[in-house]
Amino acid sequence: MTVNPADDLIQTRASRDLSFLDLVSIDQVTDKDFSLIMDVARAFRRHGTYKFDFNKGLSLMNAFFESSTRTMASFDLCAKQLSMDTSNLSSSSSSTTKGESYLDTALTLDSYNLKIITVRTREAGVPEFLARHVNAGIISAGDGWHEHPTQGLLDALTMLDHFKSTTLEGRTVTIVGDILHSRVFGSLVRLLKKLKATVRVAAPETLLPVGVENFGLTVYHDADAAITGADVVYALRVQEERGAAGFIPTLREYSKMYGISKRRLDLAKPDAILMHPGPVRRDIDVHSALVAVDERSHILQQVENGAAVRKALLWLMTSRLNGKKKEIVRK
Amino acid sequence: MTVNPADDLIQTRASRDLSFLDLVSIDQVTDKDFSLIMDVARAFRRHGTYKFDFNKGLSLMNAFFESSTRTMASFDLCAKQLSMDTSNLSSSSSSTTKGESYLDTALTLDSYNLKIITVRTREAGVPEFLARHVNAGIISAGDGWHEHPTQGLLDALTMLDHFKSTTLEGRTVTIVGDILHSRVFGSLVRLLKKLKATVRVAAPETLLPVGVENFGLTVYHDADAAITGADVVYALRVQEERGAAGFIPTLREYSKMYGISKRRLDLAKPDAILMHPGPVRRDIDVHSALVAVDERSHILQQVENGAAVRKALLWLMTSRLNGKKKEIVRK
Amino acid sequence: MTVNPADDLIQTRASRDLSFLDLVSIDQVTDKDFSLIMDVARAFRRHGTYKFDFNKGLSLMNAFFESSTRTMASFDLCAKQLSMDTSNLSSSSSSTTKGESYLDTALTLDSYNLKIITVRTREAGVPEFLARHVNAGIISAGDGWHEHPTQGLLDALTMLDHFKSTTLEGRTVTIVGDILHSRVFGSLVRLLKKLKATVRVAAPETLLPVGVENFGLTVYHDADAAITGADVVYALRVQEERGAAGFIPTLREYSKMYGISKRRLDLAKPDAILMHPGPVRRDIDVHSALVAVDERSHILQQVENGAAVRKALLWLMTSRLNGKKKEIVRK
Repeated sequence: MTVNPADDLIQTRASRDLSFLDLVSIDQVTDKDFSLIMDVARAFRRHGTYKFDFNKGLSLMNAFFESSTRTMASFDLCAKQLSMDTSNLSSSSSSTTKGESYLDTALTLDSYNLKIITVRTREAGVPEFLARHVNAGIISAGDGWHEHPTQGLLDALTMLDHFKSTTLEGRTVTIVGDILHSRVFGSLVRLLKKLKATVRVAAPETLLPVGVENFGLTVYHDADAAITGADVVYALRVQEERGAAGFIPTLREYSKMYGISKRRLDLAKPDAILMHPGPVRRDIDVHSALVAVDERSHILQQVENGAAVRKALLWLMTSRLNGKKKEIVRK
Repeated sequence: MTVNPADDLIQTRASRDLSFLDLVSIDQVTDKDFSLIMDVARAFRRHGTYKFDFNKGLSLMNAFFESSTRTMASFDLCAKQLSMDTSNLSSSSSSTTKGESYLDTALTLDSYNLKIITVRTREAGVPEFLARHVNAGIISAGDGWHEHPTQGLLDALTMLDHFKSTTLEGRTVTIVGDILHSRVFGSLVRLLKKLKATVRVAAPETLLPVGVENFGLTVYHDADAAITGADVVYALRVQEERGAAGFIPTLREYSKMYGISKRRLDLAKPDAILMHPGPVRRDIDVHSALVAVDERSHILQQVENGAAVRKALLWLMTSRLNGKKKEIVRK
Repeated sequence: MTVNPADDLIQTRASRDLSFLDLVSIDQVTDKDFSLIMDVARAFRRHGTYKFDFNKGLSLMNAFFESSTRTMASFDLCAKQLSMDTSNLSSSSSSTTKGESYLDTALTLDSYNLKIITVRTREAGVPEFLARHVNAGIISAGDGWHEHPTQGLLDALTMLDHFKSTTLEGRTVTIVGDILHSRVFGSLVRLLKKLKATVRVAAPETLLPVGVENFGLTVYHDADAAITGADVVYALRVQEERGAAGFIPTLREYSKMYGISKRRLDLAKPDAILMHPGPVRRDIDVHSALVAVDERSHILQQVENGAAVRKALLWLMTSRLNGKKKEIVRK
């Protein structure tokens, strides 16, 4: 018996609604929200690129004031697969270059009666600020070094599926690399703590934010020690474009100290997985022999899960079943 | 009783056709055209982002040789909401950088059997020139300092709706700011004269084109005097990217002399409205306390009306009911 | 009796399949493939921009690591006219600027479950390399100075239609201009040989690749002699952006020696046609009086045929009727 994809989604959802109307931080995601998103994302994943009618007549704008290939393309295609009309605004074409404020750009977009605006900015806090002032639902697609909530959710989905579990209790996740400049870290660590994982970070002192231990994690400077016995090895990219290269002696030395090689990955548990948010810098962050070849690598699975999570959010955020309206402040 | 949106549009149109096949200047818009566009735009506005099947199987290209966030996104989403297939060509990616002429780029696009090409250029007159040589309908999305006809139409819709009238007879519209570099002014003043408004402009001598009084308007250098008793205060942006800053002493002084503050707006009539074509430069063109907060500001209403006017044009220009074919010249 | 467009396509196809799953070189195109593509392209051309449901639920990404207005827009609109969801990745926004390899960008895109990825790169061989490693079908949209297979196919369609024939046996095709830097030449010459045409090239010694005569053609340095008695005069663009200007004394002299003027074209056979892959540099490659005016010019017909050929490929490559699955290698 084949199941109609739309029916599968509707049954999986089971009349549940999210508690939030904008998603700018993992802190907004309640336990109920989280399990709803995971369930619905898995259902979307079952149906690949099947075109759903759910969001027909609704429009989405990707407002990327900082460019990002993969995230913009992912939101764009996900929205289209839900029958949304989409348009993309990228940094170079934006009116902000004519002296317009983020707020006015967002208010203008909002006047097109959009349902969702995804926002990426170089500065932390902009998506949250905009969310208070526009009618459209705002989804942060990354703000400064702060958060990237859909990345956190897809990472959680990837881990939970691998371990066939609903929590990460008893699991150790080791995050290696440029913690300081990483918005991915900001969302990931919040979610890992929520899921009760033990978190270790391994980085040179210069690539760690002040007070990082307040998240309730253990800091290592020795990558081998940090990875030994881990269930998940999560490598981050050295963000040279955000100035990371100034914080380390050379990329060669960094790679030797913190890059994930086969030898280093073998220190983790036998069923451990390797993750990376992409774009990967081969042989600096992660050795070429691991990225797409080693079966422990879940890097491409993360990308696929990203599409599933984003479709889940686009559907759930736009099709509220039980009331709750957004209140905004004009400024 | 709910009305089917498509039926509402068709009834509103009532078998009327536009007189033009390309829209490059407000001078082409007859009185009949104008009332048809206003009626149909209001009908589209009633139905928000509802997806109509009207233009299914028709394609549109946004050929923006000069970049413009808001106008391109507006045409793009409007076309999609009519089920058109759209593609965007922006200045940076254009073959004109490989030495191709505007004409050949347009002829090439035309060979894709597009129905509409929107054109924005730095140079005045290009849309009109292209319209004579391609089969697709050309809509000017702004050419140099000349015209921006869809902006003029959306401005007219905004004013007429506020005053619940079909003309602006007896109304005074004061346009303040950088008249010289403004394509918006070019379309607006033509339409205001057509609608019988009394027009005042307020700008420093250096930001006024030679012979501006030939439009049949009164020139002021004192913004307060120009705004006193006005029904509409229409602020324009200082177009620094077109060199405006070289024409005024400092932005600070400009703002003090011509920026719209609450005190200055209070000089207008009690039911006056404030307008601006965007992007707004807060605290230079218009004070922050007015832009999105003051109820006299119709700036965001203009954006929404822009979508309505553009959908009306895209539908009316592509679905001719009573014959009339375009004749073109090959060059 | 009107024929339903979808039925027309299906009847024209007659249960035939292509032999290839990726298209990166004309060398892959068998005689059967070729006649299938020609037949289906003509059928698509009969129906203009009609929107087919054939590829609904399938997604395409244009991954253009080198920018190209016309080719990207053509693939984009063609895919949409088959109801595909499309997204565009252009050089400036790509993660390759963050140090990601072409391979990882392609693997990432592949994880979105795309059906087709079109690839354009500055470097020769990249599409072929990627084709071996991703699940999506790869269509080369031009790689370095190597090949541009869809251009070759649309050129063949244009010639065969003009001569109402299935081969070019007994026909002489003269290719004039910058052979060295031309990817168009690479695909064109392979196809011309396959179709049994006699091929002449006319170019200054500096704009000819070493060993070009190995393709089985005659080299001329005198354009008049090369064009005399030709059935097709195919002009190429001087690719200044790839450094061609360094190989010739001046553009003025080049134009005098190799530009196609009316006088020069008159040396060809009376029913000869003029072709150019675009973008044309008027009065350097081809005289203005010929480009869009002279009835021998088929330059715009080439563009229209490009859409037809691309739709044929997008449909045939994504809808395999008789099995055959892609095998990929992870790297």
